[in-house]
Amino acid sequence: MNQQAVYPRQPLQHHLYSAPLPHVSNLSPHQRTIQSFFIPDNLREQLTQRNEAQLMTTPARDLGLPMEVHVYHSLYPLDTHGEKSSSFYGHPSSVYKATCSVDGRTYALVRIEGFRLVNELAMQVVEAWRRIRHCNIVSIREAFTTRAFGDSSLIFAYDYHPCSTTIYSTYFTAQGQAALYNSQHQQSNGNPRLIPETTIWSYISQIASALKAVHGSGLAARVIDPKKILITGKNRIRLSGASILDVLQYDGVLNVARQQQEDLLSFGKLIIALACNSLQSFTDIAQSFEYIARYYSPDLKNLILYLLSKPLPTKNIDEIIVMIGPRILHEINCSQFYNDELESELSRELENGRLVRLMAKMGFINERPEFDMDPGWSETGDRYLIKLFRDYVFHQVDENGRPVVDMVHVLTCLNKLDAGVEEKIMLMSRDEQSCLIVSFKEIKNCIVSAFNDLTSGRK
Amino acid sequence: MNQQAVYPRQPLQHHLYSAPLPHVSNLSPHQRTIQSFFIPDNLREQLTQRNEAQLMTTPARDLGLPMEVHVYHSLYPLDTHGEKSSSFYGHPSSVYKATCSVDGRTYALVRIEGFRLVNELAMQVVEAWRRIRHCNIVSIREAFTTRAFGDSSLIFAYDYHPCSTTIYSTYFTAQGQAALYNSQHQQSNGNPRLIPETTIWSYISQIASALKAVHGSGLAARVIDPKKILITGKNRIRLSGASILDVLQYDGVLNVARQQQEDLLSFGKLIIALACNSLQSFTDIAQSFEYIARYYSPDLKNLILYLLSKPLPTKNIDEIIVMIGPRILHEINCSQFYNDELESELSRELENGRLVRLMAKMGFINERPEFDMDPGWSETGDRYLIKLFRDYVFHQVDENGRPVVDMVHVLTCLNKLDAGVEEKIMLMSRDEQSCLIVSFKEIKNCIVSAFNDLTSGRK
Repeated sequence: MNQQAVYPRQPLQHHLYSAPLPHVSNLSPHQRTIQSFFIPDNLREQLTQRNEAQLMTTPARDLGLPMEVHVYHSLYPLDTHGEKSSSFYGHPSSVYKATCSVDGRTYALVRIEGFRLVNELAMQVVEAWRRIRHCNIVSIREAFTTRAFGDSSLIFAYDYHPCSTTIYSTYFTAQGQAALYNSQHQQSNGNPRLIPETTIWSYISQIASALKAVHGSGLAARVIDPKKILITGKNRIRLSGASILDVLQYDGVLNVARQQQEDLLSFGKLIIALACNSLQSFTDIAQSFEYIARYYSPDLKNLILYLLSKPLPTKNIDEIIVMIGPRILHEINCSQFYNDELESELSRELENGRLVRLMAKMGFINERPEFDMDPGWSETGDRYLIKLFRDYVFHQVDENGRPVVDMVHVLTCLNKLDAGVEEKIMLMSRDEQSCLIVSFKEIKNCIVSAFNDLTSGRK
Repeated sequence: MNQQAVYPRQPLQHHLYSAPLPHVSNLSPHQRTIQSFFIPDNLREQLTQRNEAQLMTTPARDLGLPMEVHVYHSLYPLDTHGEKSSSFYGHPSSVYKATCSVDGRTYALVRIEGFRLVNELAMQVVEAWRRIRHCNIVSIREAFTTRAFGDSSLIFAYDYHPCSTTIYSTYFTAQGQAALYNSQHQQSNGNPRLIPETTIWSYISQIASALKAVHGSGLAARVIDPKKILITGKNRIRLSGASILDVLQYDGVLNVARQQQEDLLSFGKLIIALACNSLQSFTDIAQSFEYIARYYSPDLKNLILYLLSKPLPTKNIDEIIVMIGPRILHEINCSQFYNDELESELSRELENGRLVRLMAKMGFINERPEFDMDPGWSETGDRYLIKLFRDYVFHQVDENGRPVVDMVHVLTCLNKLDAGVEEKIMLMSRDEQSCLIVSFKEIKNCIVSAFNDLTSGRK
C-alpha cells in the first residue's frame, strides 16, 4: 500500500489519557480517582480505534482500485504488510473494506482473483449461509462476480468487524508469541508461554457453538483454521470465509457428512496447536499429549482425543456440546458480566448526546454578529430571553462577585430546558435594572423558533 | 409510604420520545429515520429509569426510618404498595435502598425485624456466600445486627439492581397475566397465555448456572421461589436472598446435601409453574404434564421429570447441565448479540461526555458580563482569541450571508481543539478588518488558562 496516498490525519493520542500512578490510585475507599468518573481507558480506546478503522479511507485511484464495485464504493485494502492476506486453495485473494451505497454500512469484501464461475448453481449455497446469524460467525451478505478490477473476480461481501486479528497472528507469529510471553512474564511458574486454559475453553465453547449452528443448517464450516478464525473483540472469535470453499469447489456432489467430520478433526488440531502453542504440535501427537497432560486439565485432553477419533456417524457436534456443557456456563457468566459493565457505562454516557446537540444549538444562536443590530435581539425582543438564559446558566456569580462554576447547575438547567418544564425562573438583565419571570417551557419555545429561523435563512 | 413526603421531581416524559409511525418507518434502504441515529428508545428508557430509581430519595424522618444504619444512609423503602415485601419463614422483613458512606454506592438492605442472633457462628456462612460472584445471583456484601430501627434487627446488604421485578410479580399476579396476554394477543394460535419456550429455557439455563456455582461452593440456594427470583434486566434473572435462611435457621448441623436436593425439586416445581403459567399446577401433576406435552418440546418435559424424581446422590446439578447443554448455547448467543449491540451504542455515545464538558467550559468563559470592561478581553488581549474561535465554530455564514448550521464543522473543530492539534486556522475579527492565524493548540492553551483564572477567582 502506498503510504503517501493516505490522507494526513490526526490520530488520538491514547497515551495522553494516562492511567493514575500507583501511589495516586491507592486511595481510601471513599476517594475516587478522576478516571473512575469516565469510561475505562481500555474500553474507550478499543471503541475509538474501531470507529477510526471504520472511517479509514484513501482515494481509490491512488491504490489502483476501482471507484465502485457493484453497490460498494470507497474500497480500502485490509491486507496487512502489503501481502495478499490469504489464498483459498490456490486462488489468490484480497480483502477490502467498502461502503455499501444501498444502506451506508461498511462491509468486508473478499475478492477471489481471476476466478471464472462455471456453474451458477454454486451460488445457491450462499443463500443457505446468509440465513445463519450467529455471534461466532462473520455473516455473509451476498456474493457476486465482477469485472470492475479488470479481471474476472468473485466477490463475497461480509459484515465488517474493525480491528480484528486472526488466531494465527495473535498466537502463532513471532510478534504474537512475544506478546504472550510478555503478558505472562510476571507469573512465570511452569511454562511461561502457556495460553491460559480458560481462554482455550472460551474458544472451544465459541467454535462449538458456531459449528452447532452450521451443522444444524446442513452445512459444513470448512474454515476451522487459525488463519481464518478472527478475534473480533474482547475474547470474541468468529469463523470467517463462510461459503467460499463451497462455491470454489462446487462440483454438484454433496459431501456434507464427510466435511462435517473434517470440521471436527480440524477443530481437534486447532485445540492441540493452541494448547501446545505451536502449529507443528500435530506432527508428534504423543509428545503433544504429554505436554497437554502436564499443563492442562484431563477434560481438555479427553475432548481432543474425542475430536481426533475415527470419523463415525455417532461422532457429532451435539456430543461435543454435552461434553463441554459445564465450561459453556463459565463462558455465559463472563459474557453476562461484560453486558452489565457495558450497560452501566452506557447509562452514564446516555444523555450526553442530547446535551451536545442542545448546547450546539445555543452556540449557533447566541452572539451572532449579524444580529448585533437586529431589533429581534434587542432588549425588548423575545429572543433577548435566550441571551439572559445563557447568562443564568453559565454566568452565575456568588455574593462576592466571584464566578460560580457549577456543572450540576448547568446540567440541571439544560435538562429542564430540554424537557420544557413549567418551572419558572427569574432572569436578570445585565444592568440589574429589570428582571423577567419565565418558565423553561417559554425559553424552549424561543430557542426552537430562533433556531428554525436560523436554519431557514430568515433572521 | 407517605406520598407527600417525596420531593417533587420532573420525570422524563418517555412518551414524548415517540417512535416513528409505520408509514414513515417503511423507508427505502438508503433512507434512515431520525431515530436510527440515536440509542433505541426502549434501551434508553430502561437505562434512564434505572438511573432515576437509583437516585430516588426522600427525607428519612418522614418515613420514620433511621438517618443512618451502620455505614448506610439515605434509606428508601423498596417494598411496593406499602406492604411488607416478604417474610422469611415467619420473620417479618423489609427491603430498603441505601447509600454506603464508605464507597458511595447504592445497596439493597434486607432487614429481618425483631430477630435476636443467638449464635455468632451463624454469620460465618455469609463469608462463604460473599465469595460467590455470579451474574445470576445477587451478591451479598455483608450482614450485621443493628438497633438503629429501635428493635433488634438483622441486616443483609446486597448489590442493588434498580427496577427489578420478581418472577412472581411478572407472571403470577393479575397484572402480570394481563401483560402477558396483551403481548401475545396478536399471535394467538394455540393457548394465548403461554410463556415462550425460549424464555423458559433462558430462565432454566440461568438458574442452572447459578445453582452450579452455589452447589460447587458447598452451599445450597434454598431460594428457588418465584418471589425470591429477580428479573433485573432484559431477560436476566438473579437469585436473591442469598444466605438469609442459612443464618435464620442455623442450628450447627450441616444438611447441605439434603438442601441441594431440595433446590433441584424447587427448580422443577418452578419450571412447571412457568410452563403452565400457574402456581397451582403442581397440585395436579398429571394434568400439568399433559398440558406441557401439548405446548412444549419433549426436552422440557424430560428435564422436569428428572428434577422431580426421587432424591439420589447421582441426581445433581452437573447432570442437569449436561441435559440442557445445547439450550445454553442459544443463551450465550443471545447474550453475545446483546454485547455487540451495547458496544455499538456505546461507541456512538463515547465522545459526547467530553464534548459536553468542553462546550460547558466555553459557555462559562465567553460573554461574561463582568468581563465587558476587562482589558484582557479587549480586541488586543489574548483571550479575544476565544471569542473569535467561538464565532469561527458557530457563526459561519455562506457567500450570501446566510447562517451555516453544520454540526460536522462544530464537532470537527471541537475535537481538534480538545486534542490541541498543530493545525492552523484563520480567525476573522467581526468588522473583517483584521485576521489572526492561530493553531488549535494555542486556542486550547488560551481556554485552559482563562478557565483556570475563572475557577481560581482571578479575572
